[in-house]
Amino acid sequence: MTSIDLNADLGEGFGRWQLTDDERLLSVVTSANVACGFHAGDAATMRRVCEQAAERGVRIGAQVSYRDLAGFGRRAMDVPPAELTAEVAYQIGALEVFARAAGTRVSYVKPHGALYNRVVHDEEQAGAVVDGVLLADATLPVLGLPGSRVLELAAKAGLPAVTEAFADRAYTERGTLVPRGQDGAVVSDPDAVVERSVGLARSGTVTARSGVPVEVRARSLCLHGDTPGAVELARRVRARLEESGIRVEAFA
Amino acid sequence: MTSIDLNADLGEGFGRWQLTDDERLLSVVTSANVACGFHAGDAATMRRVCEQAAERGVRIGAQVSYRDLAGFGRRAMDVPPAELTAEVAYQIGALEVFARAAGTRVSYVKPHGALYNRVVHDEEQAGAVVDGVLLADATLPVLGLPGSRVLELAAKAGLPAVTEAFADRAYTERGTLVPRGQDGAVVSDPDAVVERSVGLARSGTVTARSGVPVEVRARSLCLHGDTPGAVELARRVRARLEESGIRVEAFA
Amino acid sequence: MTSIDLNADLGEGFGRWQLTDDERLLSVVTSANVACGFHAGDAATMRRVCEQAAERGVRIGAQVSYRDLAGFGRRAMDVPPAELTAEVAYQIGALEVFARAAGTRVSYVKPHGALYNRVVHDEEQAGAVVDGVLLADATLPVLGLPGSRVLELAAKAGLPAVTEAFADRAYTERGTLVPRGQDGAVVSDPDAVVERSVGLARSGTVTARSGVPVEVRARSLCLHGDTPGAVELARRVRARLEESGIRVEAFA
Amino acid sequence: MTSIDLNADLGEGFGRWQLTDDERLLSVVTSANVACGFHAGDAATMRRVCEQAAERGVRIGAQVSYRDLAGFGRRAMDVPPAELTAEVAYQIGALEVFARAAGTRVSYVKPHGALYNRVVHDEEQAGAVVDGVLLADATLPVLGLPGSRVLELAAKAGLPAVTEAFADRAYTERGTLVPRGQDGAVVSDPDAVVERSVGLARSGTVTARSGVPVEVRARSLCLHGDTPGAVELARRVRARLEESGIRVEAFA
Repeated sequence: MTSIDLNADLGEGFGRWQLTDDERLLSVVTSANVACGFHAGDAATMRRVCEQAAERGVRIGAQVSYRDLAGFGRRAMDVPPAELTAEVAYQIGALEVFARAAGTRVSYVKPHGALYNRVVHDEEQAGAVVDGVLLADATLPVLGLPGSRVLELAAKAGLPAVTEAFADRAYTERGTLVPRGQDGAVVSDPDAVVERSVGLARSGTVTARSGVPVEVRARSLCLHGDTPGAVELARRVRARLEESGIRVEAFA
Repeated sequence: MTSIDLNADLGEGFGRWQLTDDERLLSVVTSANVACGFHAGDAATMRRVCEQAAERGVRIGAQVSYRDLAGFGRRAMDVPPAELTAEVAYQIGALEVFARAAGTRVSYVKPHGALYNRVVHDEEQAGAVVDGVLLADATLPVLGLPGSRVLELAAKAGLPAVTEAFADRAYTERGTLVPRGQDGAVVSDPDAVVERSVGLARSGTVTARSGVPVEVRARSLCLHGDTPGAVELARRVRARLEESGIRVEAFA
Repeated sequence: MTSIDLNADLGEGFGRWQLTDDERLLSVVTSANVACGFHAGDAATMRRVCEQAAERGVRIGAQVSYRDLAGFGRRAMDVPPAELTAEVAYQIGALEVFARAAGTRVSYVKPHGALYNRVVHDEEQAGAVVDGVLLADATLPVLGLPGSRVLELAAKAGLPAVTEAFADRAYTERGTLVPRGQDGAVVSDPDAVVERSVGLARSGTVTARSGVPVEVRARSLCLHGDTPGAVELARRVRARLEESGIRVEAFA
Repeated sequence: MTSIDLNADLGEGFGRWQLTDDERLLSVVTSANVACGFHAGDAATMRRVCEQAAERGVRIGAQVSYRDLAGFGRRAMDVPPAELTAEVAYQIGALEVFARAAGTRVSYVKPHGALYNRVVHDEEQAGAVVDGVLLADATLPVLGLPGSRVLELAAKAGLPAVTEAFADRAYTERGTLVPRGQDGAVVSDPDAVVERSVGLARSGTVTARSGVPVEVRARSLCLHGDTPGAVELARRVRARLEESGIRVEAFA
């Protein structure tokens, strides 16, 4: 039986500010990318999200980021590798304390925002992220794009490299994401998103922007939770996957 | 044979800024209170200090603080207890990752600056700090002033409560510190500091400001490392303690 | 003809996070307390709110705060007076650049959150705030509670002291606010809030919690904009004031 | 008579941390690049430096930076132009309040660190910086490298574009700086630095790394103040310029 993991970003408020609907998202996803304080996520929020995730049996991942609250981690930064390595480890360690207190563990790492995009191609920063994960826990899976440099370096270092896909993003014929900003980069029709989720989960294929089917092998689907209607759409995706005989469960 | 622990604050730079002479202090102290990023201490510095401490066999403690880089953690803050608890745990967790990577563990917690002073008397914040330590690791000793509320609550919660004294601070006849700002609050004569260290370590007594000997039972002496001549004085204190037949070692 | 000013906090988002519905509030209030980056308010938001306020002829005030993004400026802090003075001036200056670029000026100062509460009684911090205003512009009015230390010191220093009242807060028989946390501290019935607004504006009286009418002389009413229904209520307050023949206009 | 301006970075501490020897530097330079809180420079320090500069008749410039305390503004960041523009204006406005309080004005702008390097070539960020200056004060000179994009755009926008040179940096035959990291990028011999200063000031020429004389027209020389011996060297440069009949004065 085919199975798929569903992941989403959680705990992305900070102090007085809320963003993600954590409780509702936790009823849909199997893996929670928890913000660790560098782009979002104060300590009390991290604690609460870990407790809620643990209660629901949702796996906890460290959503590590550049240190950039003002830019929500969305501005690429030339952080020297030794600093980036230490900052990645710092964030994992901080989250680990709340995961353990909730009776579980941080069980994967996913870079956030501009760091996520950068480590697709940037050898130095990809290596720095992998070194940070190794420093924190040399058994932690890294979640990222198929073919990304960070997953290649993670695998080389002996870390499980877990691929993810986006049902609401357009793909090129080479199986890479159409960059945001280009026409049609985002799939906004909810029905299409639901269908694409099933295709990605069942056969590892999706229709490229050109109309050609393209292979995108992913062990996890990333759902978004910070836009209106997002949680409702996530629920529909999950329901449809289950109706289609696909087991929704955290990656092994 | 009598023994005493020597602790000092380390890693109190931030990015481009340096403050403490970490390498030299690590050749003197037996316990290193490492800044965890809230009042000082970037991630790369935390990593380096943990590595250096581990190499020298110096015990690593988490020097937890209010979130206040601009004020160096020296400004009392009315942080709600649930937030303070989470922030204390966050800092311990972040440091733990570097301690483990260096082959050791965070093995005690010491509040910094305004938080240190506040939890002497403030029931709510003292409780919040203890809760934060329990959340992170229910076996961690807490280092503080004899008779402080935080040590009382720590002991009540089953955490080892470790007392410390200051050879360079004046004491009242009740065995409490003369507040900074009062006349003679700081003992500036290096010879006096050395002598007082021996008295505190050997017999648990020190001469109060009034001239009367007073009992101050402490398992650790706190040395300062951020003023000119401080490291040299710390070396003299250690040498004199050893000459006096007192074993200088981390508290059990 | 009686007139009253309506003020509200605006621009209290930060980067990715939004809080206040600035556009709608600007269609109701006559004075905008703009966050200046210390508890909320990134630079781009400050610029936008100033432009929008200037377009609508709404007066711009500097909502100065403790430096505390994580706590939204709601945690009292023992900031030394010289630092607080400089921080107040810094915030006013930063906002002034956007007010001028929009063709207007910062024309009053209102402390935010914990600082607002603290300078009601705290001589030292009240003095530091007044010194900060004087440093920035010795003609700027200070907005605060009747009888507060900060208004007394402002007046003494030659700054216009402008009083404000809260239609949605309960008052004691002495004309002071019932502290939040006490029973009935907040008036939640919208009709009552509207009626109290008229009473405060027309006759400078409000019914105290005990049922007795009490005098509260205020030149401005503070409206809240960060809760559901708040903007709608603010609109009703303004409409009712105008229907009652009260001119709604910025204080002179 | 030939004249030259001497500029240096000042006020680059933050809270507890000190870096630049502001008092001594102010006795040497004619223009002070004052940190504005984004890479360094707390409000109290900004106030103090402005007062000291005004007393000595040293011109005050806003040393604007990326928002990056942890990286001291040395990490390039992809800040969207609208945000960068607002942040530049914010910093200028904040400093202006202290310059005015000291009886003077902010009279130029110099980007710091990674932003300085980026706006040499980056059209978008250079434009954003110029827009920020225009927003704050459309008469402010911008200080930068000859031929840099930011100076070209500043000139185009009607802002005075002021060039600077570095006596302690190697130049290529095209008159550009040899990048740090390359062999011989920094001139470490103090005598050579002094001689190069005179050549740059008197004839607008310097010996390139290849040994060939090259033209570098600069209205200001940048001196460094954050390394051991730096202030002493700055004094020697100034003394020698004056002995050589060159007037040391702020640019017009």
